[in-house]
Amino acid sequence: MKKVAIGIDIGGTNTAIGIIDYEGKCLAESNISTAAFNTPELLVEEASTKIKSMLNSIKGIEVLGIGIGAPNGNFFNGSIEYAPNLKWKGVVNLVKLFKPYFNLPVYVTNDANAAAIGEMIYGVAKGVDDFIIVTLGTGVGSGFVSNGKLVYGHDAFAGELGHVIIDENGRQCGCGRKGCLETYASATGIVRTAKEYLFLKKEDSLLREIEFENITSKDIFEAAEKGDQIALDIFDFTARKLGFSLANAVAISSPKMIVLFGGLAMAGNLILQPTKKYMEEYMLKIYKDKIPIVLSSLMNQNAAILGASALVWDQIK
Amino acid sequence: MKKVAIGIDIGGTNTAIGIIDYEGKCLAESNISTAAFNTPELLVEEASTKIKSMLNSIKGIEVLGIGIGAPNGNFFNGSIEYAPNLKWKGVVNLVKLFKPYFNLPVYVTNDANAAAIGEMIYGVAKGVDDFIIVTLGTGVGSGFVSNGKLVYGHDAFAGELGHVIIDENGRQCGCGRKGCLETYASATGIVRTAKEYLFLKKEDSLLREIEFENITSKDIFEAAEKGDQIALDIFDFTARKLGFSLANAVAISSPKMIVLFGGLAMAGNLILQPTKKYMEEYMLKIYKDKIPIVLSSLMNQNAAILGASALVWDQIK
Repeated sequence: MKKVAIGIDIGGTNTAIGIIDYEGKCLAESNISTAAFNTPELLVEEASTKIKSMLNSIKGIEVLGIGIGAPNGNFFNGSIEYAPNLKWKGVVNLVKLFKPYFNLPVYVTNDANAAAIGEMIYGVAKGVDDFIIVTLGTGVGSGFVSNGKLVYGHDAFAGELGHVIIDENGRQCGCGRKGCLETYASATGIVRTAKEYLFLKKEDSLLREIEFENITSKDIFEAAEKGDQIALDIFDFTARKLGFSLANAVAISSPKMIVLFGGLAMAGNLILQPTKKYMEEYMLKIYKDKIPIVLSSLMNQNAAILGASALVWDQIK
Repeated sequence: MKKVAIGIDIGGTNTAIGIIDYEGKCLAESNISTAAFNTPELLVEEASTKIKSMLNSIKGIEVLGIGIGAPNGNFFNGSIEYAPNLKWKGVVNLVKLFKPYFNLPVYVTNDANAAAIGEMIYGVAKGVDDFIIVTLGTGVGSGFVSNGKLVYGHDAFAGELGHVIIDENGRQCGCGRKGCLETYASATGIVRTAKEYLFLKKEDSLLREIEFENITSKDIFEAAEKGDQIALDIFDFTARKLGFSLANAVAISSPKMIVLFGGLAMAGNLILQPTKKYMEEYMLKIYKDKIPIVLSSLMNQNAAILGASALVWDQIK
């Protein structure tokens, strides 16, 4: 019997489901529309039906558990708590909702934590006991792994590197405070930087050909790839803020490696190289030239499902 | 047979030794002069003789191990590495040096880590799986405990909260960089603040009665206790920097509590209350009003020996 884990990624639009083996191979995959269901009960019912039919289509497997990655997923109580981009409000206990359908352990966590565990079980951090993953998406999330275990903190809310304040007089953040890393090093942050730079600087730029209000992080990436100086400067500024934050995070957890994940990380060396340069510049001497920054190896696969399923293996380990 | 652990605290001037039971009771205690020995071999020989005679004086005990706290002590390799305030230079492997004298496990770590483990085994953080201890001495050290384990990082160098940069244009730090927390929230940092305040402000102050160059953190404490406004402002400024740093550290590890230890922590509510106030102000909403800041309960005892001995119980656990 081949042991497998079920991974479920609940997003605002879609819910993706996969049956995953210990090597990270996806044996079956399916999607349902999150938005089509008005209550979490109905979504869970439909997901359970889908899962049962997927399981029936694969021979010779033993299912060990269900891992769920969701916005504001709380590992300690198995709930989604006040997720801003889901229809259902309040606290929704997913473990309880899945229990009637499966006699299996069910684990829930947030996206960044799932990414961390995914990287530890299947990815570049396989076998690494101490690392940091930073997810550079619309916002900035993170997962800290220490002594081979994810740092959840006492209430499962640890790992908010995106809300570490790096400049107390800095940019207004959605959280109500100022100067959080997320206001600089996210997809939305880099667009803010682009608008500032285009407004303040006089140089020509490919970005000036795009309507100011419509500039995206992808536009900045494409311009930088073509050697556009303002776009390159925008990446440099972003990397400086990220490198600064990483140097400080290293002083706390001294990781063996730092993994970058998500949209901005897709920019590859455009973000990796300057971030590494600034991190080394800002870092305390005892940490210098020891800590590689690497890209997630799961980004081109279905990382969210993999991360969710990895919760199951992590709990068995 | 009563189980006991040996705790050894190696300081620049003195080396303190204690035989400690699991409740943190010191059954025997002794001191030798570190500075009197020109080589670590001679110090270890003398310490071993002392320990053997101490052990012979107590009936009915079983010794489980030796824990050593030392400046720049490295838990992973059992060495003191380039300690600035000891006579011996380079890397000194204490585990190897003690081996010929005792058939016992020997553990080594630095002072802040020993304080963290001491607090977890005997102190206010007993049974707490997620906390931060900050040691406010000549410098600022820290220990992060997560999932019931000290965060050593991949190289045993984790927990340098004192060298987290809180203002990249801030005060010059001994580490060569600028704006480290240590330049503000240590005994030396608060004296720097006092000198700045006395120079820049015009108000009268008890501190003006002391020769400018000779002001100590104790003087500032005593003046603040008498209600001296400038001294109170100095504490407020220090607490603000510390509170800011703690709010950021909370976003990473979401601890159940924060423990303050060391000289500045002895100022009690003068430092505790404003630090808590600023930490709450700077903190992300999800962490607000959840995390107490408390004083170490070991400060008035021989905390350094206790911390060192706690390494033994922690390894058994």
